[in-house]
Amino acid sequence: MNNAEPLKNIRVVLIRTSHPGNIGGTARAMKTMGLTDLHLVLPRMFPHADALARATGAVDVLERAQVHASLAPALDDCVLAVATTSRHRELRHETATVREAARTMVDIARTGPVAIVFGNETSGLTSAEAAACELWASIPANPAFLSLNVAAAVQVCAYELRMACVEPPPPRSAEFPLATHDEVAQLYAHLEQTMVNVGFHDPAHPRRLPARLKRLLARARLETDEVSLLRGFLRAVNER
Amino acid sequence: MNNAEPLKNIRVVLIRTSHPGNIGGTARAMKTMGLTDLHLVLPRMFPHADALARATGAVDVLERAQVHASLAPALDDCVLAVATTSRHRELRHETATVREAARTMVDIARTGPVAIVFGNETSGLTSAEAAACELWASIPANPAFLSLNVAAAVQVCAYELRMACVEPPPPRSAEFPLATHDEVAQLYAHLEQTMVNVGFHDPAHPRRLPARLKRLLARARLETDEVSLLRGFLRAVNER
Repeated sequence: MNNAEPLKNIRVVLIRTSHPGNIGGTARAMKTMGLTDLHLVLPRMFPHADALARATGAVDVLERAQVHASLAPALDDCVLAVATTSRHRELRHETATVREAARTMVDIARTGPVAIVFGNETSGLTSAEAAACELWASIPANPAFLSLNVAAAVQVCAYELRMACVEPPPPRSAEFPLATHDEVAQLYAHLEQTMVNVGFHDPAHPRRLPARLKRLLARARLETDEVSLLRGFLRAVNER
Repeated sequence: MNNAEPLKNIRVVLIRTSHPGNIGGTARAMKTMGLTDLHLVLPRMFPHADALARATGAVDVLERAQVHASLAPALDDCVLAVATTSRHRELRHETATVREAARTMVDIARTGPVAIVFGNETSGLTSAEAAACELWASIPANPAFLSLNVAAAVQVCAYELRMACVEPPPPRSAEFPLATHDEVAQLYAHLEQTMVNVGFHDPAHPRRLPARLKRLLARARLETDEVSLLRGFLRAVNER
């Protein structure tokens, strides 16, 4: 399944895991969803018979797991690291749902390695560990009992990563290719200049217009043909 | 959380579970997502210390679990039963994804009890057990390794049930209300007329322009303020 290709570029990082059974359960959870790259930072006991027992058919994931003495080398070459957290941390850091984060991760994994990081069973991630990640994500859970087992949390995240690959299915056919970043930037410039030309926009007093237009264009996810259509209209406006 | 109210009407049914640890893991997985009603059909060992150990903070779910000698009494009063399966069974029975099934279950759980049924760790559900359910659901998984642990499968399903209750979250704040259907229709008319005015569009030879514009506007999910902004620009174009 080519859709699932980005999963090869997504690693799971477990920090200071206390129970080796959870490392085995994580390996199995990963493999069921097509993830294979496991990194362990300071595991309390590894390798361990309990890890093997819980891994069942995913012993290969355990065998290839890399062990690190700190988080930094586990994230070394990653272009995005996502911290999982069940707690409401400092409000100033935006926390995505795992569903939202999975979509971002899959998008970015098409271009480079991406990590998702899970803390210790009891204490979670330290503030420093969370701060080493660009994005924070949490699994919506029962406020009265947030305590997911770490392998269960990995299972949910791995499942959302797979779903982000396969659903919605291949987002669009070759018939309607999405506009590139550059094409949208050129459309934006063309639109802004046209707004100046017709006296609707004064760059000396932009108020929030550029930000609002960019937000709108980002959300619209225009196709290449639509950019051409809109630029044709703008050319016609400017020719008048 | 009132949104999660339907979860009280959704039970988890485990059939012929071999490992009591998985029953404990199931109880914990359920409680993290707000499910509490566990039914066990012919568990091999229950109660059991391994179940208690894996349940951690969800021992109350275990204590209230009901044990049955067959599937029928576990589904007795249910208005919908969903069979989980990782296998491709007879093709004539449509199999939903768990995400789709969760939405159906939550809808129906507003009116009556709903069950989701998980088979034995090794052999899954028998054909007769699956046939006793109205809907079949499977978790999209790695075709090369479909073998989710049963408590992990319950975790994913319970998570999707919770997500079906709480998501989409109140889609947007009152600060950025979505444009109404009527506002978008007026923007479309204004845009089309402007395209005529500047000589870009000839209604006598529309080609696919109206369809393409409507498709674009539908996808953009414009906000009321954005419609105002765009119509301000169109007014400025028309005044020239």
